[in-house]
Parts: sequence; structure tokens; C-alpha cells
Amino acid sequence: MQIGNDLKLLIGNSKVILRNEGILDENTFLSYGTDRTKIFSPDFQVLCFPTSTEDVQKIIEYANKNNYCVVPTGGRTGYAGGAIAKNGEIVISLSKMDKVIDFDPFFSTLTVEAGMITKNLHKEAEDRGFYFPVDFAATGSSHIGGNVATNAGGVRVVHYGLTRNWISGLKVVTGKGEILEFNGNILKNNTGLDLKQLFIGSEGTLGVITEVTVRLTQKPTESSVILLGVPTFDAILDIFKTTHSIQLPLLAFEFFTDRCISKVIEHLDLNLPFSSKPEFYTLLEFEIKREDDENELLEFIEKITELELIEDGSIAQNSNQKVTFWKYREGISESLSILHSVHKNDISIPLRNMKEFLQKMETLLNENYPLFEIALFGHIGDGNIHLNILKPKDFSEDEFHRACKIVDPQMFQLIRKYGGSISAEHGIGLLKKEFLHFSRSENEIELMQKIKKTFDPNLILNPGKVF
Amino acid sequence: MQIGNDLKLLIGNSKVILRNEGILDENTFLSYGTDRTKIFSPDFQVLCFPTSTEDVQKIIEYANKNNYCVVPTGGRTGYAGGAIAKNGEIVISLSKMDKVIDFDPFFSTLTVEAGMITKNLHKEAEDRGFYFPVDFAATGSSHIGGNVATNAGGVRVVHYGLTRNWISGLKVVTGKGEILEFNGNILKNNTGLDLKQLFIGSEGTLGVITEVTVRLTQKPTESSVILLGVPTFDAILDIFKTTHSIQLPLLAFEFFTDRCISKVIEHLDLNLPFSSKPEFYTLLEFEIKREDDENELLEFIEKITELELIEDGSIAQNSNQKVTFWKYREGISESLSILHSVHKNDISIPLRNMKEFLQKMETLLNENYPLFEIALFGHIGDGNIHLNILKPKDFSEDEFHRACKIVDPQMFQLIRKYGGSISAEHGIGLLKKEFLHFSRSENEIELMQKIKKTFDPNLILNPGKVF
Repeated sequence: MQIGNDLKLLIGNSKVILRNEGILDENTFLSYGTDRTKIFSPDFQVLCFPTSTEDVQKIIEYANKNNYCVVPTGGRTGYAGGAIAKNGEIVISLSKMDKVIDFDPFFSTLTVEAGMITKNLHKEAEDRGFYFPVDFAATGSSHIGGNVATNAGGVRVVHYGLTRNWISGLKVVTGKGEILEFNGNILKNNTGLDLKQLFIGSEGTLGVITEVTVRLTQKPTESSVILLGVPTFDAILDIFKTTHSIQLPLLAFEFFTDRCISKVIEHLDLNLPFSSKPEFYTLLEFEIKREDDENELLEFIEKITELELIEDGSIAQNSNQKVTFWKYREGISESLSILHSVHKNDISIPLRNMKEFLQKMETLLNENYPLFEIALFGHIGDGNIHLNILKPKDFSEDEFHRACKIVDPQMFQLIRKYGGSISAEHGIGLLKKEFLHFSRSENEIELMQKIKKTFDPNLILNPGKVF
Repeated sequence: MQIGNDLKLLIGNSKVILRNEGILDENTFLSYGTDRTKIFSPDFQVLCFPTSTEDVQKIIEYANKNNYCVVPTGGRTGYAGGAIAKNGEIVISLSKMDKVIDFDPFFSTLTVEAGMITKNLHKEAEDRGFYFPVDFAATGSSHIGGNVATNAGGVRVVHYGLTRNWISGLKVVTGKGEILEFNGNILKNNTGLDLKQLFIGSEGTLGVITEVTVRLTQKPTESSVILLGVPTFDAILDIFKTTHSIQLPLLAFEFFTDRCISKVIEHLDLNLPFSSKPEFYTLLEFEIKREDDENELLEFIEKITELELIEDGSIAQNSNQKVTFWKYREGISESLSILHSVHKNDISIPLRNMKEFLQKMETLLNENYPLFEIALFGHIGDGNIHLNILKPKDFSEDEFHRACKIVDPQMFQLIRKYGGSISAEHGIGLLKKEFLHFSRSENEIELMQKIKKTFDPNLILNPGKVF
């Protein structure tokens, strides 16, 4: 293949792998052009493993000159089809770019190559006495570059914010082939438009992120994990509001329903936490530094008990119990996927509208698909819920898929009505592109397309994604 | 004037004031087209006070159709000439748009019109049991819309970050006249490019910000203010690094030199804080919640004393003393301006390069202008210093101004060499436009210009500013 020889000449033999070369087996090769959505079939011939920003630039320049498109890919843990290569694109994997470049002990910033696995970045931070607070289930595989490209969230957002909050600098190669270095190693730089912000959450549509400078913070000393059984959805909201009035840092505020916990118990062979059978559960984690803090925590629990907001509750007594409490929450996604065919949606709604939205959603399903079960869980403190619809036994996969295709736009209409977003964390990718207009206006979509053209005039980057 | 009649017809008689009408005296009228730089002379004929986003839209549409340019203006407290109208532009003052629109008690977000004075926003937050942490000297006059347009900083950035960190939604009218509503009232929304980020720090070049949704947080309970006399610049950096290893939240980390404090003492008639005469001073503020925290604070002081990082030091014993300690820092700018002609620069440098940069800067001045005195102070924890050059008595204003014009680009070259920014907080405006290339690459400047054209195709907004 001409392109294979050309790219090997440009960046080096060992950094370019062709599908038909037999170096990687077909499945492994193709896995570089897909993600966790599993519903798109990858199809491409050339896979590159650049080891420098300049390598990436050479590939992009080559693609521009020779009318190829490019899909940049990280840990391939996305749920929106943002890293699918299904039309013969050149796939650029950042896996070989995973080194530490710099550490600034004054600003506590760490600069790494974009292909560093998030978990390793956590470790690099810890080795230097600091903490990188972006944390979620896939950190063992996801890359920091991918985290930036998708503005990743997770279980700590309620306290630390999204990935965006922790990015102080980026190096990128634009779709035009320009290397841009945003911000270097400074914290304050009010000199015109902050272009790096466009790349955060851009899902590979503007450029390839090759280096990332993250801010680090102090690791929370100790924490308390509390599991509560809650009788009503309103009570969850009131508990959340009550956390505003205490001084303890709230590190996590998660929720799930009895349906979710029953699946976890079935799949992971655990016991129910309480003898009562509450309809809702919330999991709270507070930072605890001193004895006084524990007293404040007890006062908090007293308060929500007095207000009759909880049915049952327990504070984890040791680290094992903490892990178990978290398992009830973090085991949900896996348990659902193993026990059922699941149609996932990751949405956000202003909390004050959440109850009404959920009621309307229930009505919608009851009227049209009374057999559909909803499993609700998520980062409720951020107004972010994972709304999973479970395939009824009587439905074939095809029937279920078709039905969900009908339900989705109706749900998105409700989301728009209640001021929410059709994608809180996961992004748009291929999966939700046709629905983007439910969350962004026509004007905004047109502006995004124009901005893309500014960075990627030949539209070679991640074609067909997002907008 | 045709334009006056037209605009009065469009948005209402009382909302349009013409220069020659005698409604406002000449000085008051012209003050709406200037800021605190004082070196640019405003010259314009039409001043609008819209009371709604739709009013703003009508003005922008009119300007587009009739080839007028527009300067949006807030509290006019800027130091970079970002809100100067000196070429007959239509000035849009947001002063009449200062109401609360919405409060979300779950997400603790507050939506206000962009013309709300920052201090009033502080109060609105407090009235609801919350805290808006963007704080700086000019909050009594500055507007929240202007804070967003300049990504304002201040004395709390080391803990809370810049204005950007606290903005969850914006409503704007673009230069094209489109109303865009970014994000509504949600915290998570990964649906394509985060366009509102472009408006934060855009200095009125892309659109007019008409509504702002800010996130609020909890007010720090109590705090301790410490003033330290420090023998060397290295010691300041070591003290700062030591703050990383304690758990107390560091609310402020400021510094100033003996020259600065002597000016404050002269102007405000205060006493020197210590009998020793240290060359440097740092002012630290920590959040203190409990007795234990005070012990940690004492341990911190013990530690930096043992390391011989301080010459002298004092913890404010009461709120009066806190105010006095802060006066030493916050009185500097005013004291310098009253006692001297001052050439201001607001720059940032990675802390690890700061000492070398300052040495080079001293050499530069010594070699060329041995009579120039530098007054250094600022938010050293952010790597942000206000580098003020004082006019020597032997120089006329003109000579001094000319000399600074020669020194500035040499200084900016040093800033670039040491990886810094020519504007940490104040922005670019008219004042530093010609020097933008010291902090942003040619490619970046071209991209910014193209992005501006996307939002403002006829280039009617804040012409001649930033890029």
C-alpha cells in the first residue's frame, strides 16, 4: 500500500501498522478503531503509533495532502462512538506517547504526553505528593488525552469539577497540521481568547492533543462513606440541599434505585445493606480531617433523620466497608450489562426539574412500552443521571433497538423542555450527532461547524462526529 | 442626529443619550467610553442604556445595517483600554441591566443581568447563604459582565481560581446580532464545543454579555491573616511550597517589597509592622475552622521559622489587625499612584523562573535607566506580579513615557523567554495589542481573528481591541 510505505518513510517503520501485514491479528488491529459502544463496526487499513508531536504533525500533513481522514484515539473507553474509524481513516493511537515531560513543584502542575493512562497519571501525581482528582470507572484504560477530548467527569465532580477544571495547558496538532502550544506553564494568561478551552470536550474534531498539563491538588486526608436508604426522590434532593449547610467537603453524592441495587446483589452476590427496603439509595462521601469533623458528620445525620429524609443508613466503619458501599454504586453498570441488554443514556437535568422530568419519562414509557424497566443511577449531585432502559425478555434485540430509537427523541424532547442536556458526560460522537439539536441551537451548531473549519479546513479530523 | 432618533425609536427614548443633548454633562457622558487607563481620549456621540437582551440585539442589528461600530461597557474599571470608545462608536452601557433573574438552591447557581455590580452580586449570594469568591479592589464599581469579559482575577485566585471557574452559563448577543444562551442552568453538558469559554476573557470582541449564571460556594468560616518579613526571594518561594504540605486552605498568598510598604506607610500614615527591615513581605490568609487548625497554623510557622525562611512575622490577633495587614498590600497601588507617576505592568511568570526573570529585568533597567525604581507586588502564589516602574524626578512625563515605550518590548521579550504572559489579569485591550505576539503565536492570533469573524462578521464589536 502506497500510504503505508509513505507513512513508514515519514515517521518510521515500526510506528505504522497495516491491517493486512499480519503484525496484529484482525481483532486487535480493529479494536484501535472502536470504543465501548460496540454498535459501530470499525473498518480501516492504517494504524499509526506516533512517538512525538512532530510525528503526529507529519501524519496530519500527509493526510491533508493525500485526501485521507484521520481518527485520533486514546484508551477507547468512550460510550458515544467518538473514536470510531469505519470509513478507511488513518487511525492515530497515542498509546506510545505516555511519558512525563515536566513537573512544576511551585504551581503543582504536571505535564505529560496525551497517551498516558489516567491511572498512571494518578500515580505520578501521588509519587510527587499530590493528587489528580479526575476519577471514574475506566481510569485503568483511559488516556488523559481522551479525558481532555471528552471533558471526562466521574464520581468526584460534585467536589472537584470536570476535567476542564484541571487543565492548565495543552499542546495540539490542528487539523491543518499546525502545532499549537496553549499556555505553557502559567496559571494566569489573559491575552485574548482561551483557545485551549475549545479543545476540551471537542472529541477529536479540531486537532490531536499530544501533551497535557494538569493542575494537581492535595489528596484528601481521610473520608467517611455513608450509605442511606431514602424513601422518596424529594428526600434525596433535601439531603443534597442539607449538605450545603455544613462545612465538610462533599467528595461524592451518588444515587441509585432499589432496582439497581437488586441487580448488583444478584450479579456480585452481595447482601442488601439494610433490612428495610427503601426505594432509593444515596451514597455520600465526606472529607474528614479531625475528630471535630466526625461530630459535624453526626450532626448532619441527626438533622436529616429529624427531617425524616432517611429510612435507614450506615456509616462505613472501616475501609473494607467503604469498598462494599462503593460496590453497590460502582457495580451497577457492569451488573446491568451482564444481566440484561441495556439501552444507556447519560443525561443531565437541573435538579429542581428532575422529579417532574422522571415522572414524565415514566409516563412516556408506561404508555408506549409498559414492559420496559428503567434503571436509574448516577451523579445526582451534578444533576447527572444514567438512565438505562432494560430489554424485556419478550423483545428481540432488534425489536428493542427499534423501540429505543423511537423513545430516544421523545426523551430528548423532554430533556430540552426541562432545561437539560442529552449528554452530561459521555459526549456526542457518532451516537448522538443526529440529536445534538436538542441541546444546542441551530446558531450554535453552525458556529461550531465554522470553528471546526478554522482549525481543520479540509475536514479531515474525526469525520462525521459531533456536529 | 439620524442615529439617535433611530435608536430611540428602536429601544425607547429614555435609553438613548446623545452627547450634544445636554442630558449628561460632557465629562460624565465621555466617562462611559473610557476606563482606568486614562491614556486614551474617548470620542463618541451615542450612549445606550438597554434594559433587556432584546434591546442589545436591536442596537447590534442597527449597527450592522448602518455601518456603526459598538463598544460594550461595564463598570469601566479596566487597566488595558478594553472599553475605550474613541472613534464614534455606539457605546452600550449595561448599567441598567442589574437585576437578579434566577437562583437555583440545589446547584447553588445565581443568574443575574450582566450589569450587576460585583459587590452587589456578593451581597445577593450572601443573602442566600452562599459566597461568590471573585474578589478584587474594584468590585464596588466593576460589573459581573465585565468580570466575565476580562476573566477577572484578584486576591483569592490562589484558592478559588479566576472568574472562568465560577461561570456556569451566559447569555450573549453576538456581533452578528444572534442571541445565544449557553448552558442554561445545568452543570454538565458535554455536547460539542463549549462556546461560552470563548466569551470569558474576550474583552467584548465577540459579543455583548447580557446575562451571567455564576456558581456559588460556601463562605469560609474564619480565617487567619499572617504577615511575614522575608529575607530573600528564594525564601518566598520556599514558604509557598511549604503551604502545599499543610491541609489548611490557603485563601491568599501575596507579596510586596520594602519599597512598596514604605510608600504605603508614607501615604496612609501607618507604622512599619516590624522593627527589623526585611527586603520582602508576604501576606498569607488561611481558612481556619477549628482549634486544631490553629495548631496546624502554628506548626506551619514553626516549620518556616526552623527553615530560616522568615526574618519576622505576626499573626493578626483580631479583625482590626487583619484589616491593617491587608492595608499594607491593598494600599500599594493607590499609594504609588499618588506619590509617583507609575508605569504599570501586570505579568505572570512560572514561579520557578521568577527569580531569574527579576534579576534580568533589574539588569536591563540598571544598564539603560539606572534612575528607574521598580515597585514589585502581587499575587505571587499565582506567579502574577504587578511590576510598576516609578518615574524618576529628573524625568519629564514625556521622557518617562518614551523610555517605558522602549523598556516594555524588552521586558516582554524576557517574559517570553521565561515562559510568562504579558498580561496575567488585566487583559490586552488597546494597551497591549501591539505586543500580543509576545504571548500568543502568529497562528493563534490568526485563529483568534478568524473566530472573531465567525461571531462578528462585519467586525463591528469593540474595534481595534485585543487582536
